[in-house]
Amino acid sequence: MSPNRKLIVALWLVMLSAIAANAQPPMRDYRRAHERQILDEFTRLLAIPNVASDRENIRRNAQFIIEMMQRRGLNPRLLETATKESPPAVYGEWRIPGATRSIIFYAHYDGQPTDPKQWTGTLPWQPVWRSAALESGGLIMALPADGAINSEWRLYARSASDDKAGVMAILTAFDALRAQNITPALNIKFIFEGEEEAGSPHLGEIIDLHKDLLAADAWIICDGPVHQSGRKQAVFGVRGDANVDVTVYGAKRPLHSGHYGNWAPNPAMMLARLLSSMKDDTGRVTIAGWYDGVEPLGEAEQRAIAEAPAYDDELKSQLGFARNEGVGKSLLELINLPSLNINGMSSGDVRRARPQCHSHDGQRGAGSAFGKRNRPPAASAAADRSHSPAGFDLPISVAVIAAVQSTSTQPIVKLPTAGGSLPLSIITDRLRTVTITVPIANYDNNQHAENENLRLQNLWDGIETMAAVMTMKPKF
Amino acid sequence: MSPNRKLIVALWLVMLSAIAANAQPPMRDYRRAHERQILDEFTRLLAIPNVASDRENIRRNAQFIIEMMQRRGLNPRLLETATKESPPAVYGEWRIPGATRSIIFYAHYDGQPTDPKQWTGTLPWQPVWRSAALESGGLIMALPADGAINSEWRLYARSASDDKAGVMAILTAFDALRAQNITPALNIKFIFEGEEEAGSPHLGEIIDLHKDLLAADAWIICDGPVHQSGRKQAVFGVRGDANVDVTVYGAKRPLHSGHYGNWAPNPAMMLARLLSSMKDDTGRVTIAGWYDGVEPLGEAEQRAIAEAPAYDDELKSQLGFARNEGVGKSLLELINLPSLNINGMSSGDVRRARPQCHSHDGQRGAGSAFGKRNRPPAASAAADRSHSPAGFDLPISVAVIAAVQSTSTQPIVKLPTAGGSLPLSIITDRLRTVTITVPIANYDNNQHAENENLRLQNLWDGIETMAAVMTMKPKF
Repeated sequence: MSPNRKLIVALWLVMLSAIAANAQPPMRDYRRAHERQILDEFTRLLAIPNVASDRENIRRNAQFIIEMMQRRGLNPRLLETATKESPPAVYGEWRIPGATRSIIFYAHYDGQPTDPKQWTGTLPWQPVWRSAALESGGLIMALPADGAINSEWRLYARSASDDKAGVMAILTAFDALRAQNITPALNIKFIFEGEEEAGSPHLGEIIDLHKDLLAADAWIICDGPVHQSGRKQAVFGVRGDANVDVTVYGAKRPLHSGHYGNWAPNPAMMLARLLSSMKDDTGRVTIAGWYDGVEPLGEAEQRAIAEAPAYDDELKSQLGFARNEGVGKSLLELINLPSLNINGMSSGDVRRARPQCHSHDGQRGAGSAFGKRNRPPAASAAADRSHSPAGFDLPISVAVIAAVQSTSTQPIVKLPTAGGSLPLSIITDRLRTVTITVPIANYDNNQHAENENLRLQNLWDGIETMAAVMTMKPKF
Repeated sequence: MSPNRKLIVALWLVMLSAIAANAQPPMRDYRRAHERQILDEFTRLLAIPNVASDRENIRRNAQFIIEMMQRRGLNPRLLETATKESPPAVYGEWRIPGATRSIIFYAHYDGQPTDPKQWTGTLPWQPVWRSAALESGGLIMALPADGAINSEWRLYARSASDDKAGVMAILTAFDALRAQNITPALNIKFIFEGEEEAGSPHLGEIIDLHKDLLAADAWIICDGPVHQSGRKQAVFGVRGDANVDVTVYGAKRPLHSGHYGNWAPNPAMMLARLLSSMKDDTGRVTIAGWYDGVEPLGEAEQRAIAEAPAYDDELKSQLGFARNEGVGKSLLELINLPSLNINGMSSGDVRRARPQCHSHDGQRGAGSAFGKRNRPPAASAAADRSHSPAGFDLPISVAVIAAVQSTSTQPIVKLPTAGGSLPLSIITDRLRTVTITVPIANYDNNQHAENENLRLQNLWDGIETMAAVMTMKPKF
């Protein structure tokens, strides 16, 4: 970086700090005065098992959120499918007198299925505090009865990050704004989905049945992690995913490997050979047509990626590997390419693998016509959620970026694409709107896995972020 | 085959039929008169769960066999280890007045662990009859109260073949001989091991503690299947096995495949690549040194293999695959080479594979010095059982071959090596003796897997085979 550039950055940081210092104290004051109350409500929500297929418990979550919103006067209601068989979405609204525009805040209250036996010392639906990340030797702690709570502590529970943290940050941001008599310029709506981790199979139907309620100038998606460096992010698409199960068949009946080994084809070996043939030594997918239709990143997108902190080496060191897979490319570059991942693989009892294709579908840049072509045939056959694009330069995007930036003393990271999967195209296919993702969780939250956790400071920051987005004034 | 050769074979078969017809009627008469009694005792033995690590049940099996032998006046006793913590062997003997030589019949009463949920329509320790093999549409049948029992019926239960069939055939052969007042020329001993499927970890100690009892001019191992063509076999060694667990480590904590896919090395893919690198397209193992020290088969061994029925195409058709792994070689040739097999493989929850190395260790031909060299370093580190050689031309071998042949109208198959694994070297390392395996089970018995079964005719044939070996007169 040149001396001049350094000076500009330094000045910018001073300015940002000033903005953040101005913007945040009311929210921060509210939070500081209500930490135990917030965490009490949050841990009670986290204590309800929330796998979408667990019909009884998933409705207990919805009911709990209904009560959270009733206490806040947000006129909540369940949005059911026609059969009322699926997890309902929970809807509420904060009508602003005179406001003609609306934004809707989305989070999901269901979580990934998990095997309690894989958790270390704690259980998925018994929220427990640790003094730091488990991987860094964090110990189980009791919340002190009074006094300051160390915001580096982590709350261990399924969906602590993904995505009940979103529900909690959004509703607490509302609390803070109302307590401080700060009124948004836009009508604020809320929708909390109950089967995002199951692939949002009924969100489309729910939108169709409740189009007026769910119409908004933007959907703000509060889900996913902030940048690994700790910087906040605004994200304009996700990679999405498609899954395919591959089953390799061997002999019709079980064979003794001693009596037939060397002669009978071994399904496990055939599976290993098939899977390993799908990538070359540099991590490039070798399936014909895999990268067809992948458009190069636009100039603004390339710049945004270049501006993001270089964090790969630090991350490799943390994660304990020396060489990344996509040789010669950075994580952020690689996230912008379709990937092929083996989700799971087993043989012996069964001989099956679940390769997972992470492939963009139209989510990169507003103008990109990133079509279905880039999905390989096998992946196209599987259920998938494709993903809506939103550009950096739309008025709403500019306003969201500014709002998130106003809460941070560090430059935020703008990403054309995050790696995850969200029902963005389900939303944009049905409503003339854009989706912008504003994640709040710590990057090392063990999302989707055992020992999921939320760093407390990320919840505190997330409340400020959500409040800032609620009170933005886009130039429509 | 030349006309002359055809004539010789035809004459030989006539002669063999005559021998078999002469030798077997007394045994067959006994069996026909006692079928229900034999099967009643057998199914009660099969009903006792028999995984070696199931301490309580494994001793119930031993006690049941003690009682079987007490009823027969065989002076049974448990052979314990020093701590009496392990499954005991059951020992008994039939002392023949004036006999100076002994042979000992070995079988094992423990079975492979199995998951009852993987069985189809029946359970491992609830013996059930089927009208044919499950894979051929065999239906569950009740044993008729009287009249002939169809000997193509199959008994489904863990260890129906492997290896309680051995226990049953040996003790019933004794019954038949005694009932017909046929006295062997040799002292007959019996040993039934209780942890063969666990790798015989205490058989060596049991032999050391009871060397006098267990000394014999030969150990006759009744375990394993006859040839796929249905022909009986005499087998002079087994391939043995060594196991190694391979664990591939990825990132230190679980990563979201969307956020990190393409960049973070995927342990499942690394495992697939590692395993698939171990064999080439022809099925040849590519690990350096894998085939070092493999001696070519001797002339007698090659001839024996050439004389075995060509059955590979029929077997491939039955098993449902078109191409075998060791391109250009027959099953019997390939069994005489060390193999590498993936026993199981899993990722997602764990990222582990269990390659299994089937490698000869001295078991091929009496004179072969087939040393440890042929085992790759990884395999040598794992627990294994290496295997004793016995030559075709030892007097005891000639006598066993003749005895087995005397019970069959078809030429029997002589094999230098079978594919399985047996504690042969544990025996021969401690006792100056030879081991010869005389298997009786049907080849399609689903050994070690779910739906293990025994074709009834194989038990009937096995009784005759064991009786013939008991009454052989080797020219020592």
